[in-house]
Amino acid sequence: MPQTKELASFIASSRLNDIPRDVIHEAKRSLLNFVGCAVGGSLEAAVETAIRALSPYSGERLAQLLARKEQFDPLYASLINGISGHVYEYDDTTPMNYIHPTPPVASALFAYASANGVSGADFLHAFLMGFETESRIGNAIYPAHYEAGWHITATAGVFGAAAGIGKLLSLSIQETVWAIGLAATQASGLREMFGSMAKSFHAGHAARNGYLSAVLAKSGFTAGEHGLEGPRGFAAVLASQYDLSKITAGLGKDFQIRYNTYKPYPCGIVVHPTIDGCIDLYRDFRPSPESIKSVRVRVAPLVLDLCNKREITQGLDSKYSIYHSAAVGLVRGKAGLQEYSDEAANNSLIRRVRERVTAVADSSITEDQSHIEVELENGQKLSRFVEQSLGNLRKPLTDRQLEDKFRDQATGRLPGTQVDRVIELCWQLDTVQDVRQLIKGTIPNGV
Amino acid sequence: MPQTKELASFIASSRLNDIPRDVIHEAKRSLLNFVGCAVGGSLEAAVETAIRALSPYSGERLAQLLARKEQFDPLYASLINGISGHVYEYDDTTPMNYIHPTPPVASALFAYASANGVSGADFLHAFLMGFETESRIGNAIYPAHYEAGWHITATAGVFGAAAGIGKLLSLSIQETVWAIGLAATQASGLREMFGSMAKSFHAGHAARNGYLSAVLAKSGFTAGEHGLEGPRGFAAVLASQYDLSKITAGLGKDFQIRYNTYKPYPCGIVVHPTIDGCIDLYRDFRPSPESIKSVRVRVAPLVLDLCNKREITQGLDSKYSIYHSAAVGLVRGKAGLQEYSDEAANNSLIRRVRERVTAVADSSITEDQSHIEVELENGQKLSRFVEQSLGNLRKPLTDRQLEDKFRDQATGRLPGTQVDRVIELCWQLDTVQDVRQLIKGTIPNGV
Repeated sequence: MPQTKELASFIASSRLNDIPRDVIHEAKRSLLNFVGCAVGGSLEAAVETAIRALSPYSGERLAQLLARKEQFDPLYASLINGISGHVYEYDDTTPMNYIHPTPPVASALFAYASANGVSGADFLHAFLMGFETESRIGNAIYPAHYEAGWHITATAGVFGAAAGIGKLLSLSIQETVWAIGLAATQASGLREMFGSMAKSFHAGHAARNGYLSAVLAKSGFTAGEHGLEGPRGFAAVLASQYDLSKITAGLGKDFQIRYNTYKPYPCGIVVHPTIDGCIDLYRDFRPSPESIKSVRVRVAPLVLDLCNKREITQGLDSKYSIYHSAAVGLVRGKAGLQEYSDEAANNSLIRRVRERVTAVADSSITEDQSHIEVELENGQKLSRFVEQSLGNLRKPLTDRQLEDKFRDQATGRLPGTQVDRVIELCWQLDTVQDVRQLIKGTIPNGV
Repeated sequence: MPQTKELASFIASSRLNDIPRDVIHEAKRSLLNFVGCAVGGSLEAAVETAIRALSPYSGERLAQLLARKEQFDPLYASLINGISGHVYEYDDTTPMNYIHPTPPVASALFAYASANGVSGADFLHAFLMGFETESRIGNAIYPAHYEAGWHITATAGVFGAAAGIGKLLSLSIQETVWAIGLAATQASGLREMFGSMAKSFHAGHAARNGYLSAVLAKSGFTAGEHGLEGPRGFAAVLASQYDLSKITAGLGKDFQIRYNTYKPYPCGIVVHPTIDGCIDLYRDFRPSPESIKSVRVRVAPLVLDLCNKREITQGLDSKYSIYHSAAVGLVRGKAGLQEYSDEAANNSLIRRVRERVTAVADSSITEDQSHIEVELENGQKLSRFVEQSLGNLRKPLTDRQLEDKFRDQATGRLPGTQVDRVIELCWQLDTVQDVRQLIKGTIPNGV
């Protein structure tokens, strides 16, 4: 059976009872992490600007935005939720394909749920269908697709949103095939946009377009039957090399959400091992910023590919800078939201150290590793080799660490009772009667 | 100067007075042709389905759809106008890049004009900026981009809509750079969708996304500065070979609309030479369908690439069939809207001849040419070699033929007085005070 149809059959016929408990729990972890990111990112300029620009075009305002007082129609709500959830670069990552998987899917589902009312169980199920869809499509085209310059979170994410909304709309197999085709033909998003507002737009764009694909398919709007595997379909056109068997092998057994990871730092994931090592050195030696003569890091080549920004004037730039990230670890011993703010980007001590960092790509270093050598003005040398970075699959954040991350992002945004309530609702999502309870909890003074 | 910035500077600083009269006239021809296609296509199932599906999501209904009684917000109106204008496959084509250039740009501009009121002069100017933008970007990436499987009407069209709406919004150079970046990162559309409703969706999708790009940029939503030429920008990611110099060489002098062509037949343009030859044979010999033993056509390889459909059960399929197209020419001596209807697709005489057509790709045959050999049951052989097909750059449709084409499409849809009025308004567009007059003329009993 062609992959598009086999995937569509799986989505249309899946039942929540068939899904293992550990998979459901990982979905809750992913959603807690995502909701925290949306709360944290909800006041960013990209979000404010999108709300201002799109407001005149909103349809009936049936959907409450996450973590904001405004309502939009559910398609634009998907788009704006996606920007909020991705803008902080603090969202989840599946290391096997570098997708940030939850924002495109969950942004659409929360918008749908707000407008229509959905039980927590149905929400989790739809979320898992979307997650599985985008992850498997991503696996099939990674790494050629990503290396070519596609922002895979957007290009694979649109399928996830289509699958998730399609499940909530109870699309038939044929309708799901069309929804996948419509998603394929809307798949877009260039890595050239990294460092601008357009990057976070990608997650929202994927959510909105995937949602639209499902809505159109439900109405009988047709698409090609072979959106994924056809000779001019998604894989052939958007990847120079691909393996379509990854879309369907082990479907329904090998759930991809088991490979999801959560960032401890709000910046490009590939710089995380370097941050771990720099924080370690800070803890062990507390070198004063003025004492640092040079910092030399050896990292996987992808790090320089993704996070090579040297000219930094604002927080957004700093998220893609191995230089800034090493500097904040050494100067402040942490790399939280404050360390990627405009203030930190322009802080003279951080800048001083940042300018002394050099980075070398070394193909013998994996993407989980980093080698750091600091030379002090007095000639002393400090070094650290990081083997596994915090938050990766072998060293995952615990449920408690995820709660702490949520609290960090929600502090100052939500009253403490709401923070507790949202965490509790996430862990109990499979028994929540209406997901609007959770959405309401994310709105400042919304409960 | 990088191409994105140079193009943005051109768009932002262009004045209507700088544009030669023949270019203005060709713009009017393009728009007359487009409006006719939108009238002709406005009742197609793809349009009806999109209206039904999207209606619940429309924002304030400020924009009148072309040729329909419904209003939508201008973004969805762009999308639906694009479907109407492209669904008949009767729209214009620039042969140097195979873009159907007017639908993505004009669909957005008519939606904007309906919502906001625009003079004919400003409309023409914005249209030409959009046309120039998409054509030049298309030239830069053709043919590698198209051959890879991209539907270039969509992927280049989104830039055209962004430039045209950007001009009406008086975007600054910086804002235009962002609009181009936002268009680049939304560029999508796969040839795999040909033969389904998703194909005509592409033109609308490009119009809507281009419009959105300009609106976001106007509000200060930022994008990468090098959307076109960056190492992970549009050209590098979506084309294996490209020539960026084509984006800017001769800008403001060598207007691309001079290379626009208009189809005499509502089907894939590459089968037009074959239709010409088959109509010629019909006129000269009037072979009865039952007398035709075999039909052998030799055509450029691209013809079989694009129009090789053999299994035909509906009108939409038949537009991509060299076999059907040869058959209707020989059986009916014409290839108008009726010959690509569901009726014709299932007509037993046409089917009989269609099944006897074989097509051979011959790289010595250009895309303007076709060689046709018909063998009759009595052994007689008829043949024709077509050197230049009607409607191509060397044999363009006259203004009068474009009017006739418009009348053919509008007959039965619009009262005769409105047909005359729309034609007149197109020719006088540079002096029309408000384009809403023209839009109103396209609506059945709208005047």
